[in-house]
Parts: sequence; structure tokens; C-alpha cells
Amino acid sequence: MTLDSFHARLSSYRESTLAGLMSAVPQREPQRYLYAPVMSYLSRTGKSIRPALCLATCQAFGGDPSDALASATAIEMLHNAFLVHDDVEDDSELRRGLPTLHAEHGVPIAINAGDMLTALSVRILRQNLPVLGPTLTQRVYDEFEHMMQESLEGQAMELGWVRDNRRDITEEDYLRMVLKKTCWYSFIHPCRIGALIGTRDGVDLDRFNRFGYYLGTAFQVQDDLLNLTGDEQRYGKEIGGDLLEGKRTLMLIHLLRQLDTQEAARVATYLGQPRALRSMRDTRWILDLMRLRGSLEHARKVTRQLAGAALYEFTQAFRDVPDSDEKRFLNQVISYMVSRDL
Amino acid sequence: MTLDSFHARLSSYRESTLAGLMSAVPQREPQRYLYAPVMSYLSRTGKSIRPALCLATCQAFGGDPSDALASATAIEMLHNAFLVHDDVEDDSELRRGLPTLHAEHGVPIAINAGDMLTALSVRILRQNLPVLGPTLTQRVYDEFEHMMQESLEGQAMELGWVRDNRRDITEEDYLRMVLKKTCWYSFIHPCRIGALIGTRDGVDLDRFNRFGYYLGTAFQVQDDLLNLTGDEQRYGKEIGGDLLEGKRTLMLIHLLRQLDTQEAARVATYLGQPRALRSMRDTRWILDLMRLRGSLEHARKVTRQLAGAALYEFTQAFRDVPDSDEKRFLNQVISYMVSRDL
Repeated sequence: MTLDSFHARLSSYRESTLAGLMSAVPQREPQRYLYAPVMSYLSRTGKSIRPALCLATCQAFGGDPSDALASATAIEMLHNAFLVHDDVEDDSELRRGLPTLHAEHGVPIAINAGDMLTALSVRILRQNLPVLGPTLTQRVYDEFEHMMQESLEGQAMELGWVRDNRRDITEEDYLRMVLKKTCWYSFIHPCRIGALIGTRDGVDLDRFNRFGYYLGTAFQVQDDLLNLTGDEQRYGKEIGGDLLEGKRTLMLIHLLRQLDTQEAARVATYLGQPRALRSMRDTRWILDLMRLRGSLEHARKVTRQLAGAALYEFTQAFRDVPDSDEKRFLNQVISYMVSRDL
Repeated sequence: MTLDSFHARLSSYRESTLAGLMSAVPQREPQRYLYAPVMSYLSRTGKSIRPALCLATCQAFGGDPSDALASATAIEMLHNAFLVHDDVEDDSELRRGLPTLHAEHGVPIAINAGDMLTALSVRILRQNLPVLGPTLTQRVYDEFEHMMQESLEGQAMELGWVRDNRRDITEEDYLRMVLKKTCWYSFIHPCRIGALIGTRDGVDLDRFNRFGYYLGTAFQVQDDLLNLTGDEQRYGKEIGGDLLEGKRTLMLIHLLRQLDTQEAARVATYLGQPRALRSMRDTRWILDLMRLRGSLEHARKVTRQLAGAALYEFTQAFRDVPDSDEKRFLNQVISYMVSRDL
């Protein structure tokens, strides 16, 4: 599959999803304090990789992708809900190249709008009923709930580590957190739900768990690297934001093991400060240290390993699936996710 | 029904609900940053009026209250989710006599814990399936979703009025906001869901809308009065908190129409300040004005009128329901809700 046809397909999935998102938002009052911010936020589409995984997997497994459209849309709606609340929780300033929802409308309106995005995501699943029947509809609800639970658990871990200025977090802790925070809702469940609908509950869904874990972790480490070293225009968030937010990334965890006592104390002080007190000078110093002590290189190596594992697990998860454009698309998602502008 | 047996019944509903709430929380990691705060918050029970309305209505309409227990528990779980996010949005300090969740664990952990409470509330509804079957289970989901939508819309109105320091809000706007923010989820839907389950979808549920509207509004105005004039120990929140938060209450709306130019300017400045800059002196001055200009008395009068209307609408909503302990309990809820410690 050429890069052009990959992107054409991704765009087409994005457009169907966007239409679903828009039509799910009630056209009524209150506009100014609720639905207008919600609509404007939804219209800043991202890559839409989650609905794309869901729709392509459904079709690759022989299903009609329109049967999975409501579920794919619900996943993307929930993703937006997570983004709004994450940005408040992390006090982030930029999202998709624009001010975060709370930067634009204030924290209270943003939290409430995020709650509405969650409520709408659950509501969309109701559209499955006439298409999939009650049993399969319930199965999708169940997948959805597990998705929410894992994500919120992972998010809790990350937030707690920052709040308590934890410096005892291991690479293993980090990988478990990412599995929960990112992999389940962004990669594993989109494939599971796609195949569930595509086969009408005809395959063991656990076949996607390892694939989604490796791909999701590769994506997250890559995303964390971009956060430190990317180009703000293309990345859409503030560069170095993770450091300013004190996020326990693979690079930071690696670096914390390479420091002498004096350096460790200075980093601990930096991480213990409120965000507003962290200076750009200190942030740059830590970034330089990460370069010097091989933390960035280590993360790049881990990304390559994880991406390799994802490629292998893809062949396992889709072993009995005949070749098709959708299958080729899914295979290409792996390199797309881990070769973004680094 | 004696006051003792009213309270005994309310306690018994509270205990069944509390057991349901507790058993719905996953017993797994992460405890420290998620489930421990969630459990501790849920164990601070309030009056549990919402599940009580749901269970008693189910039984009054001839149903087995245990069939409505999952739904009643889900409503109470969602109520807790709302409280956690409301307190962050309003920057409140006390809830149920203890520090709010974000005061204890920080805003990020609190937002995330509130999201988990919402996710758990939806998950609990799944327990309806083996008891109520797919059609009725779906009807409860639908009621639940309308409940979430109305509440979040009402909350958006209130937050927006505060953010924009709106001084053009009318009593009519206020009543519409309270219908959305409070009445649907706290009074109308608990009765609707109780009767839906109790009659196996055998009555028109709109019969409860007026009853719940009058009772809910009476309750909210009363609650706003208590917030200004109550006893902090018994009330469980900081007295005058609504003024410090700039809430557009009936008393404030009334007062804004009774001020001369100079007073109006001083109140506008007070309301336009960030909460931390509002002095206790100014807060007390506004409270005294409310007393002097009849705003408190006006609100008390409105409460009495609304409570009277609720009593009448109760006889209409339950007109064909035979007399029973549950029906008497429900009738007594009205005077209980509007005669709290004023």
C-alpha cells in the first residue's frame, strides 16, 4: 500500500467518524457554556487512529465497516473526553495546535464539557442496538467499560507519581502504566471491538492484546520523545511540556539512574516544584543531560524494539485473516505510528 | 408514618445502597491514587434520598424493590461523581462535613476519581440484565442518559453565569437551571426509574415530571438558604460558600434587583473578583443586605410555595397507587426535604 493510499484511507475513516461525532452532539441550549465548546473541540480532529483501527479490523475480519461505525465513533468521543480532562489534570496549554479547552473556557466549563463528552460516548453505543441486536450490543458495552476502567487506572498511576514526586518508578512500572493508560483504549479495544462486530462474536478477542500492547507502548514512548524533541507546529503540544508537568517518562526514569548525588538533588528539586516555578533553564539542563547520558537514545532503542514486536504480533493476531487493503492498512499503521516526525 | 419510622426506612434504603456502592468498586490496584480515595468518599454517605425515592417508588407501584437496587445504586454512584467534579468546579472546601476530595488528594486525582465514579455508575446498570431482561435494561440506560445530559447542561449554565459574572439572570433562568441541574437526576428520574421497574414499563413516566420539578426546586432553594444561614456542622459545607463561589442563587438574583447604583457597583466588583480576593467583610455585608432587602424572606416564601405545589403534584403522580408504607414514606420525603434545619 502506497503512502498516499494509506493516507487516503485514514482520511476516509476520519471523515466518517467526524460526521458521527458531530451528529451525536445535541443541537440545543446551552450553546455558549457547553455545546459550542464541545463542537469546536471535536472539529479539531486528530489522526483518528482509534476509529481507523476499529473500522479496518471489522472489515479485515469480513464485516461491514458501517456496522462498527457507531462503536468507532464512541471510542473517538471517549478519547476526546480523556484529552479534555487530561489537559486539565496536567495543566497543559496546547492540544492539536490550539489552546486546550480549559485554557480557552476555564477549568470548570472544561471539566463539565469533558463529562458531557463521556456521556455522549456511552450514548452513541445505543445506536448499535438495531444493527447488532441486544447481545452483541451488550458485548460492546462490556468492552467499552473495561476500556474506561483501564484508562482511568493508568491515568491515576501517572497522576499519583507526579503528585508525590516519586523517583522510585521503574521501567516495569512505566510499561504497566502505559498498558493501562494508553494501550487498552487506543489500540487493543479498537481492534477487539472491530473484530467482535466483524465476526459477530466469532473470534477470541484476546488475540489482539499483545499486538495492541506493543504497538501502544511503542507509540507512547515515541510520543514522549516527540514531546521533548519535536517541532511544536507539527506536534501540536508545547515542547518539553512533559518535563514541565513532571511526567514520569521512560527517558526520565532512565536519567534518574544515571545521576550523581548533586545532579539527583537538583533534578529532585526541579520535579518537586510547582510547574510555574520550573525554569526554562533547568528544563533545558535536564534535556541536555538526557541527551548526554543516553536517555533519549535508550528510548529510541526501546521504541524500535517495541515496534518490531508489534510487527511480529500483528502477523499472529491477523494470522488467519485473508490479505486485503484493510489488512495492509493495519500493518502500515505500525510504521506510521512509530515513524512520526522524529 | 412517625418520624422514627420514616428515618428507619430511609436508613434501611441507605444501607442497601451503600452495600451496592461498595461492592461495585474493583478490589485491585491502584489503591493509593484511585480506589482508596473512591472508597473513602463513598463511605461518607449523605441522606441517600435519590436511591430512597427510586426504591420506594418501585415498591409503591407494586414492584420488588430489590429489582430496582442496581439502578438506585447507579444513581447514587453518579451523584457522587457529580459531587466530586462540582466541588472542583466550584472550588469548594467541605463536603459532608469533611474536606472535598480534591482538597484531600489534589485536583488531578479528584477529576480522575470522579471519572471513575461515572464509569462505575454506568457499569452497575449492567447488573439489570439478568433481572430485567434486555428491553427494560435498555430503557433504564435511556433514562440514565437523559439524566446525565440534563444535569451537565444545568451545571454548564450555572458555571457559565459565574465565569462571566452575569448579572442579567432572571428568576425564570434560575428555575430552568435548577430543573436541569438538580431536579431531573435527584427527583424526577429516581421516581421514573423506580416506577419503570416496579410496573415493568406499565405507566407513563412523565407523570413524575411536575412532582419532581417542584420538589427538586423547593429542595434547591432551601439548600441555597441553608448555605447562607445554616449551621456548618449540620450542613456539612462551608457557610456562605455559595456567595464566595459567586453562585447565582434566588436570593442573589432577588437582591440584584433591590440595589442602588453604588451598592450594585460594589456587589458587581465583589462578584467579579477571584474567590480568594472576596473578603469575609464584603460577604457579610451582602448577607446583611439580603436580610434587609427581603431576599432571604422572598426565598423562604418561594420554598413554601414550591413545597405546596410538590404536595399537590404528589397526589397527582401517585393518584392510582394504593396506600402503603412506601407511599406514605414518599409523601413524607417532601416535608423532610424542605424542613431541614432552617
